[in-house]
This record gives sequence, C-alpha cells and structure tokens, in this order.
Amino acid sequence: MNRRMVLYTVGTVIKIEAALMLLPTICALIYKESCVKALLISIALSLAAGFALTLISRPGNKVIYAREGFITVALAWIALSAFGALPFYISGEIPSYIDAFFETVSGFTTTGASILGNVEAMSRGLLFWRSFTHWIGGMGVLVFIMAIIPSLSDRSIHLLRAEVPGPIVGKLVPRIKQTTRILYIIYMALTAIMFFLLLAGGMPVFDSIVHSIGTAGTGGFGIKADSVGSYSPYIQWVITIFMLIFGVNFNIYYLIILKKFKPAFKSAELWFYLGVVAASTVTIAVNVAPMFGNLSETVRHSAFQVATVISTTGFSTVDFNQWPALSKTVLFLLMFTGGCAGSTAGGFKLTRVFILLKNIKRELKKLLHPRSVNALKYEGKRLDENTVGSVGTYLSIYAFFLCGILLLLSFEPFDFETNVTATVACFNNIGPGFGAVGPAASFAEYSPFGKILLSFAMLFGRLEIYPLFIAFSPSTWIKK
Amino acid sequence: MNRRMVLYTVGTVIKIEAALMLLPTICALIYKESCVKALLISIALSLAAGFALTLISRPGNKVIYAREGFITVALAWIALSAFGALPFYISGEIPSYIDAFFETVSGFTTTGASILGNVEAMSRGLLFWRSFTHWIGGMGVLVFIMAIIPSLSDRSIHLLRAEVPGPIVGKLVPRIKQTTRILYIIYMALTAIMFFLLLAGGMPVFDSIVHSIGTAGTGGFGIKADSVGSYSPYIQWVITIFMLIFGVNFNIYYLIILKKFKPAFKSAELWFYLGVVAASTVTIAVNVAPMFGNLSETVRHSAFQVATVISTTGFSTVDFNQWPALSKTVLFLLMFTGGCAGSTAGGFKLTRVFILLKNIKRELKKLLHPRSVNALKYEGKRLDENTVGSVGTYLSIYAFFLCGILLLLSFEPFDFETNVTATVACFNNIGPGFGAVGPAASFAEYSPFGKILLSFAMLFGRLEIYPLFIAFSPSTWIKK
Repeated sequence: MNRRMVLYTVGTVIKIEAALMLLPTICALIYKESCVKALLISIALSLAAGFALTLISRPGNKVIYAREGFITVALAWIALSAFGALPFYISGEIPSYIDAFFETVSGFTTTGASILGNVEAMSRGLLFWRSFTHWIGGMGVLVFIMAIIPSLSDRSIHLLRAEVPGPIVGKLVPRIKQTTRILYIIYMALTAIMFFLLLAGGMPVFDSIVHSIGTAGTGGFGIKADSVGSYSPYIQWVITIFMLIFGVNFNIYYLIILKKFKPAFKSAELWFYLGVVAASTVTIAVNVAPMFGNLSETVRHSAFQVATVISTTGFSTVDFNQWPALSKTVLFLLMFTGGCAGSTAGGFKLTRVFILLKNIKRELKKLLHPRSVNALKYEGKRLDENTVGSVGTYLSIYAFFLCGILLLLSFEPFDFETNVTATVACFNNIGPGFGAVGPAASFAEYSPFGKILLSFAMLFGRLEIYPLFIAFSPSTWIKK
Repeated sequence: MNRRMVLYTVGTVIKIEAALMLLPTICALIYKESCVKALLISIALSLAAGFALTLISRPGNKVIYAREGFITVALAWIALSAFGALPFYISGEIPSYIDAFFETVSGFTTTGASILGNVEAMSRGLLFWRSFTHWIGGMGVLVFIMAIIPSLSDRSIHLLRAEVPGPIVGKLVPRIKQTTRILYIIYMALTAIMFFLLLAGGMPVFDSIVHSIGTAGTGGFGIKADSVGSYSPYIQWVITIFMLIFGVNFNIYYLIILKKFKPAFKSAELWFYLGVVAASTVTIAVNVAPMFGNLSETVRHSAFQVATVISTTGFSTVDFNQWPALSKTVLFLLMFTGGCAGSTAGGFKLTRVFILLKNIKRELKKLLHPRSVNALKYEGKRLDENTVGSVGTYLSIYAFFLCGILLLLSFEPFDFETNVTATVACFNNIGPGFGAVGPAASFAEYSPFGKILLSFAMLFGRLEIYPLFIAFSPSTWIKK
C-alpha cells in the first residue's frame, strides 16, 4: 500500500480545511464575536497538523489503487471531523469534545442531527461554520481537491469513486478534472440562485446564506429552535423546491446546460423520483389534513416534510413526530430510499431502489418463462449485470450494518422507536427521527458511547460503508 | 396453463382437509363437546366443495409446469384456510368469519398470532383443530399429498418447490415421493418423542398433544392466557429444546438416521444457527438478569424467548414486551432471520443470511483484490452463482413486500412500534410482536381490513411470496 500518498492526501485535506475556516472567521469578525479566537487557534492547529503530515509523507510515487482510494477518503473524513470540531470545543460553545465531534460529523456527512439544546445561543461565526460543513460535505472534499489541484494523477479517479455516493459515477466528460469542475460550478450556481430567492423573500442575509448552503448540501442544520417553522410560506416553499432540486442527479443539470433537453427530461430516474415525491405528499396531505387549518398549509407542510426526508436534508417546519402513524410510516420509508445517485442526498439512494425494482420485475418474469432472457435497461442503455449484482450486494451489506448499529445503540436507555429511527436517520444522513430524537428534540441525551457510535454510523452512511470498512480492516494494516 | 390440473389438486387438498377434521371431531366426542356439530357440518361442506371441484375439473393431461405449481400451492393454501375457518365460525366460538379466517391462516402458516381475547373459553375440540393446523402447515400440505397419493407424476416436484421454504430444496434421495415420506416420518417421530417427554413431565395428555403438534409446526398457539408461562420449568425447557430442534434443517436428521454423523455435525449452517442462539441467549440473559430472581430462571426465560422467536414459533413464558430495549432489539432482529431452510420455521431463513454473509465477505475481498476469483462454498460444496443471485433477489423482494404491508397496515390507528412489529411478526410467521400486539395482548383490535391484510402477509411469508404473487398477477389469468 502507498501509505505516503494516503497520508499526504489526508494532510492536504486538513490544510484545505484550515483555509475554509477563514470564511467563518470573517463572518465572526463582521459580527464582532469572541469565537474569532477559537477559529484562529483551530486554523493554526489544522495548518500545523496538515503541514506536519504532508512534510513527513511527501510521496515519491503518486500511483494509487482502489484500496488507497478508499482508505484516503475514510481517513480524510475522520480527520476533517476531528479538526472541524475544534472551533466548537475551543470556544466553549460546545463544552464536550465528543459532542463537538458528533455535531461536526453530522455537518460534513450532511446529516443535520444535532446535540444542541439551544441553537439560538450559538455565535453566528460558528453557526456559519456548522452549516458550511454541510456545503463542503455535500459534494465531497476529495472532489473539491481534484477540482482545484492541478498536479493529481489520473489515478485519482479512485478517490472520486470512493467519495461520490450512488451506484454509478456519471461519466459526464472523459476527463475527471473537468467533470469535478463542472459539478462544482453547477453546485455553486444553484446555491447562489437559492440565496437570492431567499433574500428576495425578505430573509436576512445571514439566514439566507446559512439556509442556502445547508440546503445545497442536503444537510439540515437550522439556526432557530423550530428549524424553518417560523419563516414565511414563500421561504418554506423555496427551501422545499431546492431540497428536491439538490436530490436530483446533477447529470440532469449538466444535460440541461448543454441544451440536451430531451434526454434530461426523459430520465426515468427523474420521473421515478418526482413520482415518489408526489405520491408521498398526497398520501400525507390527506392523512394530516385535519391537523391544519386550510389546504395550502396542509400541502405546504406535507411537501416540505417529504422533501426534507427524501432529500435527506433534515430541516422541518412542524414536529412530524406528532403526526399520525400513516404519515410517520411514509416518512420512515422515505428515510431509506434517499435521493438520486449523483446528487448531494444520502440514504440507500432511489437509483438503487429503481434498479432493484427493475431486477425484481425481470426475475418474476423469468420465474414464469424460464427461458426468457431480458437485459435490464437504464436511461435507455443496457445495464451491466455487474452493476445489478453490486446493487444487490450493497443492499445486504447495508441491511447488516443497519442491524449491527441498531443492536449496539440498543444499549442506550431509549425506547424501540427512538433507537430504530435514530439509527435509520443517522445512517441515512437525514437528521431527526421519531420519539426522543424527533424534530423538536435533539441527540443530546445519548451517552458518549451512543454519540460516537452514531457519528460513525453517519460516516459509514455518507461514504457508503466500503471506505471505512476497508480502513478499519486489520488486514489493511497488518502485513502478512 | 393447465387449469384443470390446478383446480383438481386444490379440490383434492380440500377433501384431505375434510378427512383431517375427523381428528378434532373425535377429540370433541371424547370431551362430549357441542362443537361436534360444527365440525361435522364443516366436514360435509368441505367434502362437497372438494368433490365438486375434482369432478368438474378431472384433468386429461396431468403435466404441470412451474407456473401451475405456484398457482396450485397459492390457491390450495387460501382454500385450506377458508374451509379450515368454518368450524370456528359455525360453532360460534369465533363469531366473525374474518376473525376465524385470520386465526386459521395464522394456524396453517404456523404463525400463531391470535385474535382470541380469552383462549381458555374455547372448546377442546376446536383448540385441538387450531393447533393441528400448525402441524399440517409446518411440513406443507402438498408435501403430504405427494407422500400419500401414489398416482402423481414426477412433475409434482414443482409443487414441492413452491411449498417448501428456503433457498435450497434438500435433495435427500433422487425420488421425490421417497423424500417426502422420509421428511414426514422424521416429523412424526420427533413430534411423538416430544409428546412423551411432555407427558413424562406431568403435563396432561391433551396439553401434551396440543403443545407437541404446535411446537413441531413451529406454530405457537397456546391454550392458556399466559401461553406456556404457568407450566413447570422442565416443560418449558422441553419446549425450548424442541422449538430449536424443529428450526434445524431436516436434512441433518436424515443424515443422522443414515449414521452419517460426520457431515451432519460438520454442517456450517447448523453451527451458525446454534451460535446465533447462544449469543442471543447470553446477551438477553445479561440484560434481563435484574428482572428475575436467580440465574436458572434468567437463563430459562432468555433461552425460551430466543428459541420461540428464531424458530418463529411464538409461544412465550413471559411478556417480553416489558423487557428492556436491548433484549427487544435482539428479539426483533431474530424475527427476521428465522430458522434454517428445510425446517418448519418461517422468516427470511438463517440459511439465506448465511449465504448473504458469505457473499458479502467475498465481495469485500474482491474490492481489495479485483482480480481474485472465489467461488462460494456451502456445506463443502461449491455454491451455484444462480443460488447466490436468487438469495439477493429474494432479499430485495422480501424488503419491498415488508415495506408495502407496513405502509398499508399504517392506516390502522396503532403506534409505530405496534404496526412495525405486527407486520414483521406476521410476515415472518412468528406470532406476537411488541406494543399492542405483544405476548400479553392479541390482534383482536385490528379492523377487518387490517386482519385480512395480515392474513395475506402470513400467507405471503409462509409461501415465500412467489406463489401468491403469481396467482394474483393479472397476466396469469388474462389471455393475451
């Protein structure tokens, strides 16, 4: 294994994180907040650690293989979270380091689960940093590095594969540096559009920034006790629509830029996604109608909650833990599906659900007509059997990990519903669950063990299991 | 499709059910109970229906294919339940036909979920019939027919495949009639041994019969309000051990009969099963120890509850709904695994879990060493890739059905925990769940819609989805 290259890349990531912390520092300076000091110390510590790592591990050989790709991504995300937690801890705004680590992992993994009892007491500088981790984590940190650093070899495709979620890495253009740049340009443009639409609705500048970067990463950290509940209907609708937009495969937007409208709007995955959103919204709206005064309120809250869960964002406008069983079950099932591959959404990914459904249909057909041979098609192209097989394998790995985390979390003194939904909401990077971890509550009551467990559940979920699994396998580190 | 042959076989099944109803009739006569009349009327109705069906559909051509096999099994099980419910309904002991149907489906599918508020008020004749349906359904009705009727063609392997649960039909001996006979002989012998062991422990004859046939089928209908809770520790241990015995692949017993001890005791599946049982029992025992007076009671109740859930039987000695979260989670996860293939246990089957785990291990290895090629081995033999693939496909179908049933059941006014575990417990043929369907409660509170839905969940689970799915597909019945 090329250990030097792995450590060198991780060191680079930490240095970049130090640079990214300048933004919250500027924010804190504007609002003349005392957290500036904590941010500057964190930047210094990160720079020191980053330079130390890159200096001791400057690689002679830059070639990496799949294994190094996975390990780099896993270690980079753990390092990002460990150093990203420093400002919260050093400033004393989150007095426990484990809590600060949980909050930062929740940020980078775009989960949005919080241990904060009173979010409104936080400084603006750190609220910005908290939401900014969503934006960084949404598209991926290694993807970012690949977009900006000129010297990486073509082997860095292994980093992209390990960090970008979903079964298929969209081959936008043949050269990967160009691909990652286009992805980031789309990402920034959409974030900016959302920012201006929020501003136009009368939302303060700071709130508009925080909510547009939090939505873009499908993160979900809010800055008010009731999340998005007290903003105007217009603002709630803007957020609803952009949560859905960021749950779509970015490939679609690239096709639109190229004016290839036909393949963009003929995407079966897109229509499946919109169909699931529409069906869920209607079901919930009919179910919760008696709780609200009028139709527009009913539809708005239903659509918002569906969008927040399917895109795995995690904002809320109401405490959906109080909703009737049917609505809760619909939301619970949407917690699993997640958004499309190639988006910033987490979860199992609707794309995989779609492929599994196609495969089930074929297998049932084969049961009746054993001699029939049908290749699966996806977006007009024949689907590689290896892809179908790997989606099936991923389902079983996903299920086993989910069960394992649930089992370990059950050592905590919470009821069944709380533990099940805390596991599902963290593993799928959503944020709030039901019961004691509902939208009106927080994860503060979990023990340090539970918080560390859920932090790793979020990391396993965001990176889709393999990278961390390989990084933690003894066989990776012990030479035979 | 050979419709005549399908209907003819279904008619035969109903006639055989009429014959089987003679046993509870004898029981009712011994105890001089008034339910004799209801039983005789039910026998007459079943005979009439059975003869009507076989007369109008006497087939010229006895050849059937996979499709007919699935449809026959699906229709036969629905017919069995519909006619089997008659004695309960006609006698008035279960006044609603839907309730009687639910109870009978629960019996034949060896689920053990009950709508009875006061089971001790039932007549002995009908209590016997209720538990006897477990025994009939455990090994399968079509399997029974194949064991006793000489004239069936070799094509009837399609019936066996559709009715016997699990991914692999154990090829005991080349000729299937002989196979089914051996299976039934093992089944009867084990039931008889259990009966005598219960009798030896001072259990009354009637109770011993009911509990040995209910355990053999891994059913779980009890005859007391507290299930098995008031019987002696000896009796509870006998039931524990036999629940585990009936959750083992019967192939193992056949090997033992042939004195092939080495392959029998080297079975990896057997050790995996025993390992899961031991680990779960220890975990739960440590967790619930503070609730019980002493070690022996703790171990007994822990082992009993693990055995009842993993074998999907459904008896209980305590109300495990009151247990702490960790124990409930362990039991919840065991609800999914189920017992071994080729046993009378339901659920997803531990055999499938085992194959999935082996496949995951291989795939993770392949991730690190892309050029490595490893064939999966199972019980010393190379595992066919099609089998591995079909286990993966079954997992996804299983997951989708589970979600679909849960979604529909959520229209019922119960909490999340109740609906989730009611779905899981019925679909996996266990019996009690948590919350309002815990061991101390019943399914009586569900609406007629909920009861019919759960009845079909039990049938889908017992027959492993495909037969009913095909029988209900419009394309099966509409000619193009």
